[in-house]
Order: sequence, then C-alpha cells, then structure tokens
Amino acid sequence: MVKIGVIGYGYWGPNLVRNFADCEGAKVVAISDLRAERRALAARQCPGASVMDSAAALIADASVDAVVVATPITSHYELVKAALQAGKHVLVEKPLAHSVEHAKSLVDEALRANVVLMVDHTFVYTSAVRKVKAILEGGELGRVYYFDSVRVNLGLVQSDSNVLWDLAPHDFSIMDYWLDKRPAAVSAYGSSHVNGMEDIAYVTLLFQDNTIAHVHVNWLAPAKIRRILVGGSRKMVVYDDMEASEKVKVYDKGVTVGAAPDPYQMRVGYRVGDMFAPNLETTEALRVECQHFIQCVTGGERPLTDGEAGLRVVELLEAAGRSLRMGGVPQPL
Amino acid sequence: MVKIGVIGYGYWGPNLVRNFADCEGAKVVAISDLRAERRALAARQCPGASVMDSAAALIADASVDAVVVATPITSHYELVKAALQAGKHVLVEKPLAHSVEHAKSLVDEALRANVVLMVDHTFVYTSAVRKVKAILEGGELGRVYYFDSVRVNLGLVQSDSNVLWDLAPHDFSIMDYWLDKRPAAVSAYGSSHVNGMEDIAYVTLLFQDNTIAHVHVNWLAPAKIRRILVGGSRKMVVYDDMEASEKVKVYDKGVTVGAAPDPYQMRVGYRVGDMFAPNLETTEALRVECQHFIQCVTGGERPLTDGEAGLRVVELLEAAGRSLRMGGVPQPL
Amino acid sequence: MVKIGVIGYGYWGPNLVRNFADCEGAKVVAISDLRAERRALAARQCPGASVMDSAAALIADASVDAVVVATPITSHYELVKAALQAGKHVLVEKPLAHSVEHAKSLVDEALRANVVLMVDHTFVYTSAVRKVKAILEGGELGRVYYFDSVRVNLGLVQSDSNVLWDLAPHDFSIMDYWLDKRPAAVSAYGSSHVNGMEDIAYVTLLFQDNTIAHVHVNWLAPAKIRRILVGGSRKMVVYDDMEASEKVKVYDKGVTVGAAPDPYQMRVGYRVGDMFAPNLETTEALRVECQHFIQCVTGGERPLTDGEAGLRVVELLEAAGRSLRMGGVPQPL
Amino acid sequence: MVKIGVIGYGYWGPNLVRNFADCEGAKVVAISDLRAERRALAARQCPGASVMDSAAALIADASVDAVVVATPITSHYELVKAALQAGKHVLVEKPLAHSVEHAKSLVDEALRANVVLMVDHTFVYTSAVRKVKAILEGGELGRVYYFDSVRVNLGLVQSDSNVLWDLAPHDFSIMDYWLDKRPAAVSAYGSSHVNGMEDIAYVTLLFQDNTIAHVHVNWLAPAKIRRILVGGSRKMVVYDDMEASEKVKVYDKGVTVGAAPDPYQMRVGYRVGDMFAPNLETTEALRVECQHFIQCVTGGERPLTDGEAGLRVVELLEAAGRSLRMGGVPQPL
Repeated sequence: MVKIGVIGYGYWGPNLVRNFADCEGAKVVAISDLRAERRALAARQCPGASVMDSAAALIADASVDAVVVATPITSHYELVKAALQAGKHVLVEKPLAHSVEHAKSLVDEALRANVVLMVDHTFVYTSAVRKVKAILEGGELGRVYYFDSVRVNLGLVQSDSNVLWDLAPHDFSIMDYWLDKRPAAVSAYGSSHVNGMEDIAYVTLLFQDNTIAHVHVNWLAPAKIRRILVGGSRKMVVYDDMEASEKVKVYDKGVTVGAAPDPYQMRVGYRVGDMFAPNLETTEALRVECQHFIQCVTGGERPLTDGEAGLRVVELLEAAGRSLRMGGVPQPL
Repeated sequence: MVKIGVIGYGYWGPNLVRNFADCEGAKVVAISDLRAERRALAARQCPGASVMDSAAALIADASVDAVVVATPITSHYELVKAALQAGKHVLVEKPLAHSVEHAKSLVDEALRANVVLMVDHTFVYTSAVRKVKAILEGGELGRVYYFDSVRVNLGLVQSDSNVLWDLAPHDFSIMDYWLDKRPAAVSAYGSSHVNGMEDIAYVTLLFQDNTIAHVHVNWLAPAKIRRILVGGSRKMVVYDDMEASEKVKVYDKGVTVGAAPDPYQMRVGYRVGDMFAPNLETTEALRVECQHFIQCVTGGERPLTDGEAGLRVVELLEAAGRSLRMGGVPQPL
Repeated sequence: MVKIGVIGYGYWGPNLVRNFADCEGAKVVAISDLRAERRALAARQCPGASVMDSAAALIADASVDAVVVATPITSHYELVKAALQAGKHVLVEKPLAHSVEHAKSLVDEALRANVVLMVDHTFVYTSAVRKVKAILEGGELGRVYYFDSVRVNLGLVQSDSNVLWDLAPHDFSIMDYWLDKRPAAVSAYGSSHVNGMEDIAYVTLLFQDNTIAHVHVNWLAPAKIRRILVGGSRKMVVYDDMEASEKVKVYDKGVTVGAAPDPYQMRVGYRVGDMFAPNLETTEALRVECQHFIQCVTGGERPLTDGEAGLRVVELLEAAGRSLRMGGVPQPL
Repeated sequence: MVKIGVIGYGYWGPNLVRNFADCEGAKVVAISDLRAERRALAARQCPGASVMDSAAALIADASVDAVVVATPITSHYELVKAALQAGKHVLVEKPLAHSVEHAKSLVDEALRANVVLMVDHTFVYTSAVRKVKAILEGGELGRVYYFDSVRVNLGLVQSDSNVLWDLAPHDFSIMDYWLDKRPAAVSAYGSSHVNGMEDIAYVTLLFQDNTIAHVHVNWLAPAKIRRILVGGSRKMVVYDDMEASEKVKVYDKGVTVGAAPDPYQMRVGYRVGDMFAPNLETTEALRVECQHFIQCVTGGERPLTDGEAGLRVVELLEAAGRSLRMGGVPQPL
C-alpha cells in the first residue's frame, strides 16, 4: 500500500485525491494546503487523511511514501526538491519546474535519491493521445510533415506564469510523446492585455528536416478549442478533444507530385479516401496516470512521463519564453 | 449595359460569368482562355458570348467595356496593365499582382486611365464579414486584442505560387477591412513538402499597440477549417465559415483585472454572458460583388476593394514572403 | 441529342435547366411558365430555349423529345398525362402524383406509350444515399432493425399540400431504395398551426417482421436537421446530410444478448468498435440524375426511380395522409 | 444535519452519495446494496457511512432521517413505501413507481406520514432546463406549437423495464415542467430486437388544443442524441444536451400567414432573425437537486419534483405502455 501525501488542494488537488482513492494499492494519508477553507474541504471530502497547513510537515511525515505536488508552478522546485531529499517518490503537476536549471537539478536529485520522479503530463495518459501514438508507431501516417495544436478558451489568467507556461506544457508533452525527433529551434510571439503576462502566444518549432510544429495558446478566446492536426506523407490525423466521441480521426488523404503539362497549373495528385475513427477506451486519464505512478513506485517501472520528459518540456518552455521576450528571434535548443 | 469580357475560364471564371449573367445592367460579351476544352465549355455555358483564345484580342475588342481577369497570379500584372491602358475597367482575381512594385504600377495606371480597378477580395462581400464589420464599427467589441485566422484544408497545390499567395489574401483582405489600423511588422514561418513551394505557413502580424494578428494557411490539412477569432476588451467574435448557419457568433465574454489577495493566484474577473448569432442575409457574395463592380463602373462609386486595398494586401504578402525566406525575421511594413 | 422541354420555372426548374445544359447529349429547347417574370428569368438564363406561357404548347412542340415537369404537386397528373399521351418521355418532380389512382394511371400510360417515365427522387442520386445502399447490399449491417429519419427546418409552407406531401417523399424514396421490404401498415400524427395544412407530421411504418421505420417532417423547426439512422444487428449507419463532409458514418456498434446472473440487471453484451466514414464522390446529385434520364431515353435503360418507384412512394403518402385524418389509426398497405 | 441512507449502490448511487457529501447540512450515514462488491466500493468511497446488505435494516435505522432509493424500477414501490411508513423522507430515482396505482399509493402515504417525497427527475434541475422554463414563463415563445424530444444512444438494455420506462421519464418530466397543460391522449409504437423488451419507442402526445408532443427513445442508436425542440408562435428553442456549451438556443424565427395572390403558392410570411444562446450556470444538476431535497426536508418547502410530479410522469408512462401493447391505439389520460 503506497501512502500518498498531497500538497495543494486547489483546482487540481481534489481530482488527484479522488483518483488515488480509487486506485488499488494506494491510500491518501495526508493533505496540506495554506488556505483554511481548502483544508476544510479536504477534511470533508477525504475523511481518512490528516489535513495540515504545512507542506514541510507533510514531507517530513514518516507515514508518507510518495508526495504529490499540486501547487502553482513557481513553488514546484522547492517542494519537489525537499520531497526528493526526504526520500519520497514524487508526482508533480506540469510543468516540472520554472527553469531548465531547476528541472535538471530535480532530475539529478531523483537519480541520487533513487526514487520515482514523475510529471503529471495528463494528456499523455488519455486514450486518444495513446491511440495516436500507436498509429504513429505503426507508420500509418508515413513521414510526419507537421504538428499543429490550438488550445484556447477563456482561461484562468494566472498571476505567477503566462499562458505559455500554463497551457503549452500540454502541447509540448504530447508532441514530445508522439514525435521521435526534437525541435532544433523555437520562435514565439505573444501579447499581453490583462495583467502584464502574455495571455496569447504563438510558438513555432523548427526541426532539422523540414517538419514544422506550431502551438497556439490563448486565455482570451470565446470558444474552447483543443485541436491537434498531424499531417503525414500518407495519412493525416485530427485529434479534437472537444468532440464527445470520435476524438481521433484518421484521414486517408494525401498529396503526391506527378507530371502535369497544364500550362496554368502543375497539378499534383490528391488521394482522398475514407476516414476512420478508432474506438477509444473511456477510462479517465488521471486514473490511468495515478495507477501508473503506483506501479512505478512499487514495481520499479520507469514512468512514461519521467523527470527527463518533464525536463524536455521545460527546455521548450524556457526557449519559447526567451524568444517571446526577444521579439520572436528563434532560439536554438 | 456594361459589356464584360472575361479572361480565364478555369475554376473561378465560370462563377464570375454566371454571376454577371444574373446582374442587372451587365452582359458577358466575350470570354478568352488558352485551352480549347475550356473554350468549348464557355461556348456551351454562355452561348451569347464570343469565345476566343487570345486575351489581347479580348482586351482590344471595342465592344468590351470592362475586363475581368481570372487567370493565375503571375499573369495578373501584364493582363491588367494592358486592359487599363486600353481604357477598360478591370476586376481582377486576388491578389492584385505578384509584387508590390507591380501592384503600385497598376494602381497608378488606373488613376491615369481614370477607370475602375477593383480586386476580387470575395470574402469582403459575404454577409458574415460585413456583419462583423458593422459590429466592430459599432464599438461592441471594445478595443481589439487579436485577430486569429485559420484557413486550412487539402488544397490545390499551385505551381506558380505558394500557400501564402494562394490563401492568405483572403485573411489579409478581411483583416484589412475589419481593423482600422495597419500592422507594423510581419514574421512568417513555413515549410514545403510537395513541390518546393511552401504548403504550410504561419504568419504573425505585429501592431504598434499590442494588438496581434496571426494567420495559419495550410494546403495539407485533412479537415477544412475556416475560422477567424477576434477578441476585444468587451466582447469576442467567432466567424466560422464552415457552419451551415450561425457563421458569426458574438460572445459577451471578457476578462477584467481586479484586486485579488489570493496567495496562490491573482484572480481577474471573468464576464461570461450570453452568446448572440446575428441573422445573415443569404445572398451569394460573388453576386453582391459583381453588382457592386457594375455600380462602380456606371455610377462612379469607389470600390470597397479598390486597387489601394489590393495593394495593401500585396504589401503584406510580399513582406510575409520575405520573412518566410529569411527564416522568420520580422519585416517592417 | 435529346431535346428537353421544361414546364415550370419556379424554385426547382432553373436547377434542372442548368444541369441538363451541362449534360452531354441533351439540350433544353423550350421552357414554359405561367408567370411573366419567371419567363423573363428563363430567357435571360437560357438564351437558347424558346420560352412560352403555355405548357400545352410546349407538350405539343414537335421539337421536344422529353418533358420535365417542375410544377406544384396538384398539377403533375394532368401535365404528365398529356406529355405521355403526346409520346414524350417524362421526368417529373416528386411526388409522381397526388393520389395512388393518378399515379397508377400514369404508370399505365407510360407503358402504353412505351416511353420513359422517371420521378425526380433526387436523394436517390446522391453519393451518400448510394453509398449506404451499397453497404446495405453488402450485408455489413446485418438484419435491419429500424430506419429513422428526421427532416425538419423552417420550410416553405405550401398552399396545395401539407408537410407530408412536401417533405416525406424524400424519406419514403430513400427508404424504398434502401430496404428490400415494404411496410405493411402506416400510422401518422400531425398538427397544423399556420394555414390549415399539417405543418408537422410523425409517421410510423410497421413491417411484417419487427422492423420499424419512422419519419419526422416539420416546417416549423428552427434548425435544419436532415438525419437518418439505420440500425442493424451488426452495424449502424448515420447519414447526416447537414455535415459538410463525412455525411455517412458506419458504426461498428451492436448489442448481443448473453446470460447474465446479475440480480439487478440482465446485462447484454455491447460491441463498441471503430467508426468509419467512407469517402463520397462530390458530383451533384441532380447532375447524375439528369444524365441518368438521358441514358434511359437514349439507351432504353430502366430508370432507378421509375414510375413504379414513384407509385410506391405515393402509396405511402396516401396511406399516411389517411391515417393523419383518422387520428393515427394505422392504415394497411 | 440531515442524515441520509442510500439504498442501492449501482450506477447512480455513487453519484448521489458524492453529491450529498458535498451538500451543506447533509451527511450520508448508511448505504445498503445486495452485492458484496458494491458494498466494498461504498466502504472505500464513503468511509464515514455504515454499509449493509439489508435495505430493511437501513430503513429501520433510527439514525437515518431520509432515505434515497437508487434501485431498479420494479423495487421502488416496496422500498419507498416501507421508508415512508417508517417516517423517513424519501428521494427516489425516476420513475416514482412501475404503475399508476403504486405511484398514487406512495403519494398518499407521504401525505399521511407528513414527510417529503421527492422524485429524482434530474434534468429538471439542470440550468438548461430551468432557463428554458424561464423563457417559456416570460412568454417569449408565444403559444407553444410542439415539443419534440429525441433521446437515443447505445444504451444499457434493462432486464426489468423497456426503453420507455428507462428513458422517457426524462422527456416526460421535462415536458411536464415546461408546459402548463397536460396531454389528453397518448399513442406509442415500438419494437423489440434484443431481449423481448421494447428497445425503440415513438410516443405521440396529443393535447386538447392542437399542440403536439413527440418523444423518440432508442437504446440501439449509434450516436448519442439528446435534443429537444420547442416551437412557438413567436420564437423557437433548441435544447441540445450534447453541446459542450450553448446547450440552449433561442431562435427568433417564425411563420405568419398573409394574403398571397401567387397562383402557385399561397406564401406565408417568414421571420428569420437572430439566434441567442443564454449563458448557463455550470452547477451540477444533481448537486442542485440534493441541496433542494435537504431544504425541503429541513425547511418544509415543497419539492419541485414532488410525488405528484412523479405520478404525472408515471401516468404518461403507463398509458404509453398500454398503447404500445395495443398496436398504437391512442390512450386517453
């Protein structure tokens, strides 16, 4: 039985607690939060756990085997570091840390402490994202031409991070999981209209071959859009997370160049075939993820979204942020 | 009765001919095309017109009052120039020309010849785009924060232009019509997978104030997306051209900054109100545009999408193309 | 070259004329309409045809080989009868006639005159409806359990027929084409709110086996819905005509009964598999239909939607109408 | 503090327990279920409650103030009766009982015992359904012409009831809440393909005036549809529960009769105006309902969906079921 302590009972904490409660082999034994009213809610919703105001006390608690960190981004480094140093396994909300330096340090610390460090890149555990991974691995799409993600809605403007650090970890972690190559450079543009932090950002990711990736994140959009397009030389995928069912659609569509003596237009061939929407399991992603964390802790398995994956995402975020501040100048990776 | 000669009977030409045929006060008297089979089709579909292979002959035809140019982009300059010099009024498919220099020269020539020069920025004549213009002019949206356009599908890869010159004229002409300010600089990234021309492009447009605009055009997308978001300080608009009805939705949504003593999050205020979809007239845009051209020719009215508007669009295209070739370096306008 | 005369240049007539104009082997030589302004439009849009006010004159015209009847329902019988008796081939808008007696008489007349009688059941010529037919013939769906059609929008309230006679011919002709069995009885309910004719109707069709079919037609609906569900023992189909693409979706879904010792619920097995949307040709249905008519006239082929098919649809309409007037009492067929 | 005992921990029970746990003024103190594995789950998810196998013991438990019955339909009557007789307040899953006789008896018993009897007509507590109620009460729609509901998907085929008793309580309770008039007769058709119970049903409800209502429920549909149309003389509403946002749309559309001298068609006037989607609160309906139950218990308020409302729904179900068995013969109410 892995005994879990959860730090932070804000928006995401209750979801983690509920899912660990449903996991075989896990038990939430402690919850901490700085705010009295959140502690009251925690006590109500999780009567079996001891609820406290001090994260340090939770980390120090000998009955806690694994610490889950669900606090604002800027606090991740200190809390995760302390937990690792106390020999606890750690699952931390995305992103791993607020700088590459900190992220690297945490990866090193986890190695030194020989404990599990896992980052809550939740989307990687959805059946939709995993199905697309399987399709990509099967080679069905051919060579990948582009990855295009739009993630916009009227979002919670954060005070300690901009829209890039808030939303783009989702896109970057999905891209990192799907593609077997890493970008060579990143350029980002954005603008800020509410509180001085960027609330709109456009990120272009350039690869050594001519693959291109693009991420549009926006806290000021009237409609919720969560759509990723992946175009390949043979087939193309649309992953639309707002679809009730049929979130993943695989299109047998493509373009092939051919001779064309038309004086007006060098026509290329088009292949427009059937569309196919694979059946997706309906398991909650967070449930799958929590179970995976428990397995890693007890079975020594390496997390799918380990510290290294978290670091790769932070590298992209930091470079994109640097480009944003420098007026879009591409930053090498 | 304005007598019309149409040069080019490919994809778009028949639509222009059909719409002018339905216009009061206009008559299509001549059609030219280099291809015999297109001439045969023209003869069949428009028995009243004389059909010829020579554009020069059509331009020289004294019975022609106005010339409509519906040929590939690279031929616009020569044909429009000749028509203007022959004293004909001209309606030319978008974009006006393939370079700023050429576009300027055509604007000058039209002035000199004292004839109408109008560019077929078709979307400007749709009831959806005009409704949004009216909403913007009414001040309903407040200050505009951003303009974001996605125009992607499995498109006809062109041999004489890239995706930017093929699709972005739509987005640029709509933006030019809607916003009362012009971008100060433009940056573009793209990649090319089929025939050496860019088939994917991401264009960021920066303004003196912190307004930002972005255009994503893509010939290699599996699904057809034609969606523009405009976010303002008071309301936001979604214009989705793929919707059967309700193409324009106005959201009473917004973000307002306020004091927030929360240690975790500086919350800002959110206004989430009703959504409203104005009724739109169902008139075909091209019909409205053709009628407008006739009015300009006969009544001396200045076209909504005159040569100057065409030139502004070409300026954006040329600058974006330059940035594309220079690896995204922003180009001033 | 089949020379076509078109009677009625209202809403549908111009579409027929335009499509016959594009057909190889056909030429529209005459058009008649009672209304002067429609004749003016016809003259403008089809300069090659002689335009007249008298349908009788058109039918008597020796240069006309085939007559297309595109007039209100109540006039079909007289006009089609006269044309058949004059030895002309006939294509008539749906439904064939306003009564079974009249429809039978027309079928007989066509046989006697040895000419083609075809009914414009347009949907049967769409690629979507034909694709579903192919799927059904392939046995992919297993045994058909039900056919459910909804066809509603804010429609043109007709003065000479109710919503049943106006819209249900579409559903009945599709059902007649898809299913290899005929209903045994029909029950219909409706109500009337505008001009004394039913503007809403619900029709249930009962079969000898326990297949059930249902059609909902409504002129007073705020949204346009054109959706047919077909459930089978193995797979199920959704045909949604309002979808821009992917009009036909085939679901690998089903229910199978099994032993289930649960005291609460006798569970049955569910099969929830992939969904598949076949690629559909983009040819205009009316174009396909006009070409088919020409082939039947010249090649002696039997029309897919011949007089017999038209008669079967009228039988359903008449029986449903009788049930409607009798408060829903099922009418045998 | 109202102490709650929940009978039945199947599909719906856990949702009720979770929502009562979040309610101020309530505490779940006991849960019973016949199945050991469901009891194990209950113990895990609700550690504060005593978990038992006997419903009778739960009802007899003096510490229980209110009993929530979440068991299959056929058991409602016995369990609710026993609870009422023990002086407990009762919230029972829809429908109230499996016959009008039983439903009436329960209403009487609650009156006699002077306790609250409330039926879990969940949809009545959604913000969408309540918003439409407010719109109807405001008279915005004018006179109601029709109510049309479609509720279909691949559903859980029940062993103790047909699709009518499983799904139609939702539609009937919404209709009962929205309309200020009751149907005079009901006709139903259905068919059965899996286990002898009807898995498809079409119900037509006739009113004294010419209002018409129709409900289509189906367990064998490939796509999930939950859509209600309400047409009025002035405006029309679409309530689509599958929409992520904008579940309720109010259309300013209508038809008005006018003089029309057209020989072909007596045209009526059409009003096609704007559409409006009111903002809806995002509170979970079941949460609102549980809180309402607690208020009724503690404050003596009459439940919105009291025993009488439950009885009216059962009257419709029983009459529709009778019509179903009699081949569609309309049953008076």
